[in-house]
Amino acid sequence: MRLGVDAMGGDYAPEAAVLGAIEACNAVSGNTTIVLFGDERQIQEIIQRENRLLPNLEIVHTTEVIAMNDNPTSSFSAKSDSSIVVGFTHLKAGKIDGFASAGSTGAMMVGCMHVIKQVDGIIRPTIASTIPTVKGGKTLLLDVGINIDCKPEVLYQYGIIGSIYSREVLKNSNPRIGLLNIGEEQKKGNNQTKAAYELMSESSDFNFIGNVEAKHIFSGEVADVFVCDGFVGNTILKEAEGMYAAFKSLGVKGIDFLDALNYENEGGTPVLGVNNCVIIGHGCSTPKAIKNMILQTEKTLKAGLVEKIKETFCE
Amino acid sequence: MRLGVDAMGGDYAPEAAVLGAIEACNAVSGNTTIVLFGDERQIQEIIQRENRLLPNLEIVHTTEVIAMNDNPTSSFSAKSDSSIVVGFTHLKAGKIDGFASAGSTGAMMVGCMHVIKQVDGIIRPTIASTIPTVKGGKTLLLDVGINIDCKPEVLYQYGIIGSIYSREVLKNSNPRIGLLNIGEEQKKGNNQTKAAYELMSESSDFNFIGNVEAKHIFSGEVADVFVCDGFVGNTILKEAEGMYAAFKSLGVKGIDFLDALNYENEGGTPVLGVNNCVIIGHGCSTPKAIKNMILQTEKTLKAGLVEKIKETFCE
Repeated sequence: MRLGVDAMGGDYAPEAAVLGAIEACNAVSGNTTIVLFGDERQIQEIIQRENRLLPNLEIVHTTEVIAMNDNPTSSFSAKSDSSIVVGFTHLKAGKIDGFASAGSTGAMMVGCMHVIKQVDGIIRPTIASTIPTVKGGKTLLLDVGINIDCKPEVLYQYGIIGSIYSREVLKNSNPRIGLLNIGEEQKKGNNQTKAAYELMSESSDFNFIGNVEAKHIFSGEVADVFVCDGFVGNTILKEAEGMYAAFKSLGVKGIDFLDALNYENEGGTPVLGVNNCVIIGHGCSTPKAIKNMILQTEKTLKAGLVEKIKETFCE
Repeated sequence: MRLGVDAMGGDYAPEAAVLGAIEACNAVSGNTTIVLFGDERQIQEIIQRENRLLPNLEIVHTTEVIAMNDNPTSSFSAKSDSSIVVGFTHLKAGKIDGFASAGSTGAMMVGCMHVIKQVDGIIRPTIASTIPTVKGGKTLLLDVGINIDCKPEVLYQYGIIGSIYSREVLKNSNPRIGLLNIGEEQKKGNNQTKAAYELMSESSDFNFIGNVEAKHIFSGEVADVFVCDGFVGNTILKEAEGMYAAFKSLGVKGIDFLDALNYENEGGTPVLGVNNCVIIGHGCSTPKAIKNMILQTEKTLKAGLVEKIKETFCE
């Protein structure tokens, strides 16, 4: 298995990205190779400084970088030798099995939509995030920020995609799919959730359990998957991030649940509904976060997630 | 000052409501009277069992109750001798200065809109909630669940109303008003926030500081007021509620910030933009929550909040 990693992506790149990849080299399976895309001289400097033998690390030299504030679409065209563009070209050509980056989310989505493309039948690819529960498990939240003001049909497809992810990656045999809402009654919510409820309540594609509230997201007792619009999902993630920072600033320690809220342990969010395995990391990723982003790429590939989604939608 | 309280409102009424009112009798100012609306026999039974002398408690006997699952509008018409309807009638007539209930939010809003009515110039009254910060302060979040899919002009008015609340009740001399969004850049967000940003960025009615993210809500460092749609605000509140429950279930203790997240300490949310002081409590209010709801009513009245909002909008 060959995992492509953007060495130039993220606020602390290439330093954090390369250090994270070095750590990951020892943590991945024996037959897995990590392929770094970036400036070879800079990457080699960091590797030599660390003085590590890395038989399962390869470098693909690239000369350009898409910056966080570059226009995603135009820079994707203009910077054809950037780490992200070359990474996607390798992914499309089958030279790597998955590609992960903590760089420009916009450019990563351009690569998803224009190079590897969405799976036939998928209206909108989505990004999902797992949320830790107090019992040590994980619930799944989607969408977490790519699709804003999305149509009820899109939320319906999140139900299908979330169900596959929960089953294949989180190993829930019959995942409970909830529609995130501000009350449990059928008539609650905004125009979007009311229309989505109508569609989802007639679903035979997944196990719909009705409306669920954000207060249940950390318990794991009510639903396995929380479906929502990207604006709402992103807000939920950001609030959890703020809560983590709040408790850390107060010196709270030794609580596994709190530590699990640290984005570094998650590493990244998979783009679901595209033809290959793509993982997007947090912009301010540390080496630990990059390492976990790479391990998540391997885990997602091993679960055969992309194939399962394709099978379902191309039936 | 005369504070009206619905003795029949809430999941544990009349027990919790009356016990909370008894506690509040000793906590309010010397010249404040608490007026309970409800079944006099049931109320007296609880008071006599507690064996307390309550010179500042009055009872207005009512024979009906609007239940949580009653249709708010039709039950408000049909149950004219219910505690909520009689409470609003007294409020309108000036026999009480404020009215608080942990009963049907829908029926309370019917009372607000049809009996005491909204302030001239206000498009939509709103409900707000304070959010504790790690430094022991409070930020203000609005709307927290009444107005869903609201127009940009409504969000703009929340900026004005939130600014007044923050200044008069939370004592911030120049409150920083942020638009809750999923990124800080101007062009971020959904159609609603993009349009609201346009309006708010030209405001001379309040101190607009731009887009703010939910991760900043507990720090108190970025904004004093977070303006958002009721769906988003309610979701933020519910997530905080879930987070509180999560940490409590893990046995975390001795953290003031965590204790402040307990809704019981807040008591209720004021309805802002109507002609009198109305406070809505949590459906599952305990006696402690009811007591704090009553104290919040007194605090809101003392701050002259309703008058300040009227002055601003009727200018």
